[in-house]
Amino acid sequence: MSPKITGELLRQLRQAMRNCKYFSEPIQAYIVPSGDAHQSEYIAPCDCRREFICGFNGSAGTAIVTEQHAAMWTDGRYFLQASQQMDNNWTLMKMGLKETPSQEDWLISILPENSRVGVDPWIIAADQWKNMSKALTSAGHSLVAVQDNLIDAVWTDRPERPSTQLRTLGLEYTGISWQDKITALRTKMTERKLTWFVATALDEIAWLFNLRGADIEYNPVFFAYTIVGMNTIRLFVDLKRLSDPVLRDHLQLDSPSKPELSIQTFPYELVYTELQAICAALSPKDKVWICDKASCALTQVIPKTHRSPIPYTPLCLAKAVKNPTEIQGMKMAHIKDAVALCELFAWLEKEIPKGTITEISAADKAEEFRSQQKEFVGLSFPTISSVGPNGAIIHYRPLPETNRNLTMNEVYLIDSGAQYVDGTTDVTRTMHFGTPSAFEKECFTYVLKGHIAVSAAIFPNGTKGHLLDSFARAALWESGLDYLHGTGHGVGCFLNVHEGPCGISYKTFADEPLEAGMIVSDEPGYYEDGSFGIRIENVVLVVPAKPKYNYRNRGSLTFEPLTLVPIQVKMMNTELLTQKERDWVNEYHRKCREVVGAELERQGRKEALEWLIRETQPII
Amino acid sequence: MSPKITGELLRQLRQAMRNCKYFSEPIQAYIVPSGDAHQSEYIAPCDCRREFICGFNGSAGTAIVTEQHAAMWTDGRYFLQASQQMDNNWTLMKMGLKETPSQEDWLISILPENSRVGVDPWIIAADQWKNMSKALTSAGHSLVAVQDNLIDAVWTDRPERPSTQLRTLGLEYTGISWQDKITALRTKMTERKLTWFVATALDEIAWLFNLRGADIEYNPVFFAYTIVGMNTIRLFVDLKRLSDPVLRDHLQLDSPSKPELSIQTFPYELVYTELQAICAALSPKDKVWICDKASCALTQVIPKTHRSPIPYTPLCLAKAVKNPTEIQGMKMAHIKDAVALCELFAWLEKEIPKGTITEISAADKAEEFRSQQKEFVGLSFPTISSVGPNGAIIHYRPLPETNRNLTMNEVYLIDSGAQYVDGTTDVTRTMHFGTPSAFEKECFTYVLKGHIAVSAAIFPNGTKGHLLDSFARAALWESGLDYLHGTGHGVGCFLNVHEGPCGISYKTFADEPLEAGMIVSDEPGYYEDGSFGIRIENVVLVVPAKPKYNYRNRGSLTFEPLTLVPIQVKMMNTELLTQKERDWVNEYHRKCREVVGAELERQGRKEALEWLIRETQPII
Repeated sequence: MSPKITGELLRQLRQAMRNCKYFSEPIQAYIVPSGDAHQSEYIAPCDCRREFICGFNGSAGTAIVTEQHAAMWTDGRYFLQASQQMDNNWTLMKMGLKETPSQEDWLISILPENSRVGVDPWIIAADQWKNMSKALTSAGHSLVAVQDNLIDAVWTDRPERPSTQLRTLGLEYTGISWQDKITALRTKMTERKLTWFVATALDEIAWLFNLRGADIEYNPVFFAYTIVGMNTIRLFVDLKRLSDPVLRDHLQLDSPSKPELSIQTFPYELVYTELQAICAALSPKDKVWICDKASCALTQVIPKTHRSPIPYTPLCLAKAVKNPTEIQGMKMAHIKDAVALCELFAWLEKEIPKGTITEISAADKAEEFRSQQKEFVGLSFPTISSVGPNGAIIHYRPLPETNRNLTMNEVYLIDSGAQYVDGTTDVTRTMHFGTPSAFEKECFTYVLKGHIAVSAAIFPNGTKGHLLDSFARAALWESGLDYLHGTGHGVGCFLNVHEGPCGISYKTFADEPLEAGMIVSDEPGYYEDGSFGIRIENVVLVVPAKPKYNYRNRGSLTFEPLTLVPIQVKMMNTELLTQKERDWVNEYHRKCREVVGAELERQGRKEALEWLIRETQPII
Repeated sequence: MSPKITGELLRQLRQAMRNCKYFSEPIQAYIVPSGDAHQSEYIAPCDCRREFICGFNGSAGTAIVTEQHAAMWTDGRYFLQASQQMDNNWTLMKMGLKETPSQEDWLISILPENSRVGVDPWIIAADQWKNMSKALTSAGHSLVAVQDNLIDAVWTDRPERPSTQLRTLGLEYTGISWQDKITALRTKMTERKLTWFVATALDEIAWLFNLRGADIEYNPVFFAYTIVGMNTIRLFVDLKRLSDPVLRDHLQLDSPSKPELSIQTFPYELVYTELQAICAALSPKDKVWICDKASCALTQVIPKTHRSPIPYTPLCLAKAVKNPTEIQGMKMAHIKDAVALCELFAWLEKEIPKGTITEISAADKAEEFRSQQKEFVGLSFPTISSVGPNGAIIHYRPLPETNRNLTMNEVYLIDSGAQYVDGTTDVTRTMHFGTPSAFEKECFTYVLKGHIAVSAAIFPNGTKGHLLDSFARAALWESGLDYLHGTGHGVGCFLNVHEGPCGISYKTFADEPLEAGMIVSDEPGYYEDGSFGIRIENVVLVVPAKPKYNYRNRGSLTFEPLTLVPIQVKMMNTELLTQKERDWVNEYHRKCREVVGAELERQGRKEALEWLIRETQPII
């Protein structure tokens, strides 16, 4: 990995910072955030501006360039990678270390008095803008919205914004028509006395219209905005995409069933001027709903007195609670995914002794097996396929220069998932193909105890996921161990593998309560630096539980695993498990064998079936 | 309980609201918060203004009076009590119910346009002022600081502000001199580049100067403010209190050892003008540290650019971590407290069959036994002594009209504590003097499992208490049960029985991490409305733990119970306990017997010793 040479680029960027074509007065600093105009977690190549200017291509990081300095902030996952990808023009700012200043503090410490700090208002969220602006203003500087993106100005070979073909999803996949989703949204708007709703998150728009795209790798979304009023629906999207008759029919573009369900389409770029026009016509009591994580640019179009910012939109909440059709689809997707993984593990067992399997070839094989399954669309995120010490790098992704061989002597961790038309998967298994050490087994068993503690937990309706996080850690803590990431995230249904507003993490307090139909991951781990990594991840569905009592009629919830892939018994020190935990493992494996076994049989995958049967023998 | 007649009082208050003696223009609403000028949890009679105006005397509640309406907001603990204590002039606003509007929303819904809402800026915290003001302003109204308290204006027989004798505490109790505490505070101020620190919380001031008072029942504090600069210390207190030579010597008022440790004393009332004078002389870079829960009045004296508000002051943090002398004192106090409770329970066992013991007489007897112990000062809060259904009222306090007899047929819950010169106690035990039902035992055992799960938890250094809250609930949740209060609060050392900044509760996210030397309560419960209440509470000390491993050298912590009073085995269904839990009970009881037994022996309290030995037999 050699660093990107950025001297000339920085010279050009600094010239643009002084160039009055872009603003009335020069700016002294320019902020380059990671995101796109929709605050997406994964972004398209045309939006990789921070990578373009500094060379670092991790998923999180912010670059700031001043006349004299260039600095890039990222977190502990990426310290090594960033230091390798950036040249000497750049200072790596290691977030989370005490000595590292915040972006605000750093700017304040180096800027001359009364400086102007520029940022593209489309790629900074409204709440981030607010914090940054407040800090700079209090120190006598100002944050300035630069409408023309200065990176784009120096990025001569910038890729086009993707405009992939759109896929319509029928009721057999979505369970609810887009018309009914619009109606439900309007009911919520009426309840809250809101007249307009602006949707900017790509997965929310895809979910709302029962459409999927392929504009961003791993995420079946497409670039669009939508603005919903009580009688109108405006969709902003590259109009070339709307010529397909199936799509036109799906959206009823040519013959809407009711006037209030007629979709007006506009070019993607017109969202700003259309929202301006809407806001110009607001009556004094009208309120516009927008997520406080939406772009600063769009948010500020709405006059403050008309703005009703929310941490999670009604679409985000509605999307998180899966309906019976979606749950059925997710179950089917997980069975197909389990078939592929049983194939993979049976194949690895056979091939590893030959010494030719690498992290990359194993990942490729996993994709190959998945692609044989019906309605496979693609992966849901880059496969983490890691051997031995690489497993301890939590967000590892094998590259030719780090690629290790799978052997009988080291722990293998594979965290992978796929998009099927009926659902999204995400599963991690940790295996040993030889004989694991006592310490590896001990750690694995603590992680398993944590996984079970969450999966089997019974908790009252209304409980927020962060209250379950410590259950995943108790066994590790008791032995002085821990892991430095959250325990679970929401999972979309043929949508983003990470979605809000619920999860299981000590880091948040603002998550929404768990409710039946939500789907999250349960993935505690343990990482021994330089040696091995362990993680056991199932996707689990929140379901009603029926304990003995029902305090204040609140009702109770628990989890049902959707992932049905055996957890390697060889890695367990079963003596450390309680009887209840052993029962859980046996019941889980019984279900894997029953459900996935039937599908393996149906598909005639004999070796994988034998492997499954062997791996699901009850433990005592 | 008959309601207070408030018609005439409200007439007078409304007259004052229109009376231009108090402000330039009349106000349309007047807010009467619960607190005093120090935002104390318990308040002196002269500060019970909300009780005076509406009759409701619970610990939490806010009254708002407009020309037409009078409404009082309180929480679920007090719905019944408030409805009994207030007459028809008042509307009870039940907080926590969906249909109940917030104070802001209610005001906005009933006020005429451009209304002025008044409040005494001394008894509203700066952060509350900010929120209320923002909401009112956005609806076209304004929040107005009314310097003269309008309740005091109509309260003809308002009691005097107490000015009790001050008690000096030597190093044998405090471990650190006030001079060293000042020096440590100044070190923190230097680190944060702050030039002034304003202390307004009464327990922080008492702790800082190693002084105690008796101005507020149960809380050994005194009315004062202090402002600490890098070279000066200003103490604002009723100067009559400073005539005692022992006190003058303790504070070195007549011969300070060093100039920067010389205390300038001022009348209590002068804090406002002195702070004004200090702020007038600030240089541009000077910053003043003040808690964001301090009064709006004092906070607003400090110009915004010089203000550095913090959620917890450095004194609050320093006070929370007890030093070895304080820990030793707390241990001694808890042994004495256990002696008194063993006496009580032995006595109750003998007396209850006679049928003459009531909740009130049992509480009185507990106080009598405590008062026989060395260095007893008083109770640390009103004793909760409750039988049967009264036990299900979480913040019950026996009154003549609710007083029940202790019998062999009902569960008895006693939550009580005392102030000793060497420490503060707070303990809850739930007992049955006949034969508990299977359901009572079952619930008790779940609560005990939760208590043990917290008490025995091992967790990494840096863990916040709220992450342990679910451990206390897991066993209850598994059976569909729960309790609607937090699990623990910080406890002062011969100071307030409730103190920040740490605790164990699902309700907070802003607590400070637990560290060795902190002292909190561990008190899960279960309440069966109309039938019984269960709570098991120990005060526990955070201590280092030494598990097998030490991940990232972070170190681990656990709890050591300071409370040493047997937990009634008769109430346990031991079959529901794991071996580990049984071991915990036996080890706890062994320690009770060893430590408290020796003290009972020394004090010659034979019957209590016999009771202790019987109640601490190992369970199998």
